[in-house]
Amino acid sequence: MSHRIAVIPGDGIGTEVMLEGLRVLEAAARRFDLDLTLEHFDFACCDYYLEHGRMLPDDWFDRLKDFDAILYGAVGWPEKVPDHISLWGSLLQFRRQFDQYINLRPCKLLPGIKSPLADRRPGDIDFYVVRENTEGEYSSVGGRMFEGTEREVVIQETVMTRVGVDRVLKYAFDLAATRPRKKLTSATKSNGIAITMPWWDERVKAMSTNYPDVSVDAFHIDILTANFVMHPDWFDVVVASNLFGDILSDLGPACTGTIGVAPSANINPEGKFPSLFEPVHGSAPDIAGKGIANPIGQIWSAAMMLEHLGHKEAGKAIVDAFEAVLAEADPAVLTADAGGHGTTETLGRAIAERL
Amino acid sequence: MSHRIAVIPGDGIGTEVMLEGLRVLEAAARRFDLDLTLEHFDFACCDYYLEHGRMLPDDWFDRLKDFDAILYGAVGWPEKVPDHISLWGSLLQFRRQFDQYINLRPCKLLPGIKSPLADRRPGDIDFYVVRENTEGEYSSVGGRMFEGTEREVVIQETVMTRVGVDRVLKYAFDLAATRPRKKLTSATKSNGIAITMPWWDERVKAMSTNYPDVSVDAFHIDILTANFVMHPDWFDVVVASNLFGDILSDLGPACTGTIGVAPSANINPEGKFPSLFEPVHGSAPDIAGKGIANPIGQIWSAAMMLEHLGHKEAGKAIVDAFEAVLAEADPAVLTADAGGHGTTETLGRAIAERL
Ligand SMILES: CC(C)[C@H](C(=O)O)[C@@H](O)C(=O)O
Ligand SMILES: CC(C)[C@H](C(=O)O)[C@@H](O)C(=O)O
Repeated sequence: MSHRIAVIPGDGIGTEVMLEGLRVLEAAARRFDLDLTLEHFDFACCDYYLEHGRMLPDDWFDRLKDFDAILYGAVGWPEKVPDHISLWGSLLQFRRQFDQYINLRPCKLLPGIKSPLADRRPGDIDFYVVRENTEGEYSSVGGRMFEGTEREVVIQETVMTRVGVDRVLKYAFDLAATRPRKKLTSATKSNGIAITMPWWDERVKAMSTNYPDVSVDAFHIDILTANFVMHPDWFDVVVASNLFGDILSDLGPACTGTIGVAPSANINPEGKFPSLFEPVHGSAPDIAGKGIANPIGQIWSAAMMLEHLGHKEAGKAIVDAFEAVLAEADPAVLTADAGGHGTTETLGRAIAERL
Repeated sequence: MSHRIAVIPGDGIGTEVMLEGLRVLEAAARRFDLDLTLEHFDFACCDYYLEHGRMLPDDWFDRLKDFDAILYGAVGWPEKVPDHISLWGSLLQFRRQFDQYINLRPCKLLPGIKSPLADRRPGDIDFYVVRENTEGEYSSVGGRMFEGTEREVVIQETVMTRVGVDRVLKYAFDLAATRPRKKLTSATKSNGIAITMPWWDERVKAMSTNYPDVSVDAFHIDILTANFVMHPDWFDVVVASNLFGDILSDLGPACTGTIGVAPSANINPEGKFPSLFEPVHGSAPDIAGKGIANPIGQIWSAAMMLEHLGHKEAGKAIVDAFEAVLAEADPAVLTADAGGHGTTETLGRAIAERL
């Protein structure tokens, strides 16, 4: 089975960590005899915008739609292009146009990575955030009125659809059903956001009748964020709307100390369009060009991509490889954020060699 | 100067912690020779709803509007009344009708209270969340269409006004200007919530020109929640929209281990209407009736109320008193959540006596 992968490094450290992501991907391809064809694209980054006045060429959809997956670095460089333009012009287009309606992010305490939480050890925290990725609070409906006057009012509509909510709930329940604990937590705010969220609760309840083996609970988003800090061991699979999932999938990795290394999968489960894999971290203009960014987020994203393409073993081998390198804790290999004095490249090479 | 205080215990542990809040309040009144008149109300709780079919009597506004402040316990008992009904029928009415447009919550590491974060000590974390409390994402505009069908769509509008946003920003800048660090952090999400939040950023920028001495930064809400966990020492005053402030003001106290004891002030700064003071914790039906709830949230709320009424010294004396009792750490006095085997009453009495 051969796969065509579109490679989009994007901005800042995206271009640096991508090199190591590809290095490890190629090592995995050799070891597991995978047939991967990589094609590189220079758009969906701020330099492209500065040259062309837009983030993507007109024919981006047709050029990318037949790939089996997209491996993305990071996008955004606020000093060059305001974030809402660069993001809505690239990443958020991919998510929407390729109907990548699932955003999946693991939150896992790793060996050798220090968690900001007291008294937590690898194994204690290991859950997924399943985020709705195409609708909800991220909407393009709304605007300003009486602009520039004292009466100014600005409106933005949250739009949820039954189709959109049910399919993310189904994905999350399916995932929970495959896991030993079989537990699903719903992020809500039906006490305050009293139109959309009570309805979200109803959809969760309706979907749960199809999964008698999955135990379900729900927390309002405010106390849920608190519980991520106080009781991260409570969670197995957490399902959330676009905005709540965005928050929880940064907060979760922060609690495990892995925000700089966590991966993110933007999935079109039906495989009608390519899914997109990217590190959770951004383009980090402040450290770009120094070769010190930790490449594990990109490498872990590549592992998720291989799993998604059906190569579970290869994906797992990559995760095992970087966990082993982290556990070894060689300061000459690790980047500064992980307590070493190595570079993006020393860490990438060590993981590729281990593989 | 005499003050009329409306006392509304509400539901569940609200009624239990209120007794101790009043005990300490009376001790403070004796010591500082304050003239307080307390009047008790039995509405704004679920039992009232079960009896009357509504959370508040028709004339609640007129009966409460001339009080100098409201001391509230907690509201909500989902098995009796759905949360969105009990909350929108009481607490959220007070906030809106009495134009309590500031929600102010301290996040402070206290002696004797264990934080879930590693290696943090009292003094390390000490900031305020200033939350917009009347508009934004908590809106009553929207609804369902094509209900019950596959086409079902549910919409809720976030509504922000220049008046509403500017006044909370002004309050937050004013507060930051009085503090030694003079630092304001804005919670945004202008990269994803691309209509309201870029405008929020513009208002922050405009307001900041009036405060050259206050240093300003901004984080998107996702990474901001992460930074509460990773770098809580970065923050001094954090200003946020209604929803973001709701989240941050639970997460902040969670990081300091004080979610069960944090207070909350719902303020109408002009004093046109009474302000309302309540613990952050809810009515906790699961432990109601057992006499084991920690009353410090209610007591600290009473302290904020006295400060608001101009009695800074009395407010500070209450805070000093409970900090001293916590630092003493007598297990016979402290409630279980604080590591003791005392009751709501033993802890309340100890604080009142210390005062
Ligand atoms: C109970 C709920 C409606 C309320 C809110 O969201 O405002 C609470 O969480 C709070 O923070 O006071
Ligand atoms: C960059 C931003 C628009 C994006 C989002 O909010 O979805 C990011 O935070 C993410 O989580 O992928």
